[in-house]
Amino acid sequence: MSLQNDLLLRALAGEQTERPPVWLMRQAGRILPEYRAIRSRLSGFKELVKTPELACEVTIQPVDLLGVDAAILFSDILVVPEAMGLPYELIEKVGPPRFPETIGSASDMKRLHAVDPEEHLGYVLEAMKMTRSALDGRVPLIGFAGAPWTIFCYMVEGGGSKEWSRARRMLRSEPALAEDLLDRITEATIAYLNAQVEAGAQALQLFDSWAGALDADLFERYTMPRLKRICDEVKGAPLIVFAKGAGWQMDRLATLSCQGLGVDWHMPVSEARMRAPHHVLQGNLDPSVLYGTEAEVRAATQRMLSDFGRGMHVANLGHGVYPDINPDRVRAFIDEVKQNAHSEGVN
Amino acid sequence: MSLQNDLLLRALAGEQTERPPVWLMRQAGRILPEYRAIRSRLSGFKELVKTPELACEVTIQPVDLLGVDAAILFSDILVVPEAMGLPYELIEKVGPPRFPETIGSASDMKRLHAVDPEEHLGYVLEAMKMTRSALDGRVPLIGFAGAPWTIFCYMVEGGGSKEWSRARRMLRSEPALAEDLLDRITEATIAYLNAQVEAGAQALQLFDSWAGALDADLFERYTMPRLKRICDEVKGAPLIVFAKGAGWQMDRLATLSCQGLGVDWHMPVSEARMRAPHHVLQGNLDPSVLYGTEAEVRAATQRMLSDFGRGMHVANLGHGVYPDINPDRVRAFIDEVKQNAHSEGVN
Repeated sequence: MSLQNDLLLRALAGEQTERPPVWLMRQAGRILPEYRAIRSRLSGFKELVKTPELACEVTIQPVDLLGVDAAILFSDILVVPEAMGLPYELIEKVGPPRFPETIGSASDMKRLHAVDPEEHLGYVLEAMKMTRSALDGRVPLIGFAGAPWTIFCYMVEGGGSKEWSRARRMLRSEPALAEDLLDRITEATIAYLNAQVEAGAQALQLFDSWAGALDADLFERYTMPRLKRICDEVKGAPLIVFAKGAGWQMDRLATLSCQGLGVDWHMPVSEARMRAPHHVLQGNLDPSVLYGTEAEVRAATQRMLSDFGRGMHVANLGHGVYPDINPDRVRAFIDEVKQNAHSEGVN
Repeated sequence: MSLQNDLLLRALAGEQTERPPVWLMRQAGRILPEYRAIRSRLSGFKELVKTPELACEVTIQPVDLLGVDAAILFSDILVVPEAMGLPYELIEKVGPPRFPETIGSASDMKRLHAVDPEEHLGYVLEAMKMTRSALDGRVPLIGFAGAPWTIFCYMVEGGGSKEWSRARRMLRSEPALAEDLLDRITEATIAYLNAQVEAGAQALQLFDSWAGALDADLFERYTMPRLKRICDEVKGAPLIVFAKGAGWQMDRLATLSCQGLGVDWHMPVSEARMRAPHHVLQGNLDPSVLYGTEAEVRAATQRMLSDFGRGMHVANLGHGVYPDINPDRVRAFIDEVKQNAHSEGVN
């Protein structure tokens, strides 16, 4: 079936669209009472991720309830390390995800195996197929994965960290082991993203959430070659690479063959555009703007749209929406983008 | 008495020095077995901070054992919110510091009072006097404080955070309360830094560790006016402002009347220099470089020195040294800087 709203796909193809498409990271649930109602019936986050019917339902909620121009599958970047052999735990209301076992030495690598997406991540692919069908062409469906460095951070540290110094220590002190682990993650990620496209994903995003922890040398040596491989070997859907905190590497990211690059709220849009003149840029409103009044949200959204200028832009926040944001402010953000019809276009 | 090694003070005065001075953030102890020997006899970190004789001893250790060109008083940025009325807890080996009580509303502000440095922070001033005397002019003594936004983060959130979204929420949703709290921190900080100079500090550093969480608007509205006030009202010693992660604001920071600006390892040195042509720049080796081999440490140090070029540079890491770094690698870093005598100068 043909898409009724293909704004995102046309924008990522570099076409001049009548207005920028708009969606949010972590939009799938989190802020919506309707999402919390589902969550409250379950044992936890993992049950939601692993039950395709439920993942499908919460993926579609923001399309219905917020009016975004794309759905992003409800899942987690940590499903890939789990599929590789390191299960994660997420204890509700206790804290962030944790890996009871981590990779600290060559012998720990024995815990890992190659990923067959059908066998190890079938529940995600099932959710993707079901969601694509349930969306019925209303908006495109986005798939995603974590970038190798970001997944590496969790596999080495076992949980969150401010500076990821243990992960960076491995890059510095055991480069061969680090390269091996990064390569295995890269291969799993390529297989996983291609399988997502086969299961129905119409666009993809790669989250390099901790790219900002690396200096230029480490970024160049460890990150760039793997991002390049993913961009070159994932086929069939446009790809957005979002390397949060790595604005200083935007000129390097601009050498990738992906269609879009994410921009966080730290770097000025003009600097991002200068460094990446030929990519569609996505972002970049500070999510905390949505804590302000509706008038403030609308004014800040207008400033952002004006900073990006016409075309080559996917409107989004500069990171995921925070769970305690009032959904009405999210709607004001989305509405403000939608009202921004280019004069000669159609809203 | 006159200083035997006044490299840091001459460099901060803008003089061309025979080589860059070198010191490290968190150098006071942490990596040294001699420091751990003292710590193991104590109930915890706070006992060390609050006992002037011990703070003095660990402050001087890196001068003797590592050969740095400056001593930085062993203390913590959280002594200021504690002096204002919010005590912090630091439970050994359990986790990062926590504030059992935080500021979430106007009524919470009743917990706070103005800071009289002699009355509320006398133990720091006592340690400063003792250390200045014990150093006996070998190297300059650096005092420090957290910047208002960074202290605000801890007072609002109660502990560490990745994105400080609750602190940013207060800026967006309760601007008057946020301004009031930031102003009170600013006033306490000015009084505290001036008292440190009176007690013997010969240079000062202001740590804005979480400046990178703010977008340009929030940085301009909430941070810049307070940094400016501190730079203008603290007298008697050169000041280095280190706004970590805020490299995109370097052109704004360059309008401050401080002598030095810290540079983290994320932004290229050339970009920092372009944005702040008239300030002494301090930094910026990625601390994780010190996890590598001695040859790698020396090579990376050489590249950094060459990036900064001649003069207007204080050699340092781009952030604090990690506790599990081998002290020999720290010595290699320091030694490499010291060997970098400018041809016409004296090493």
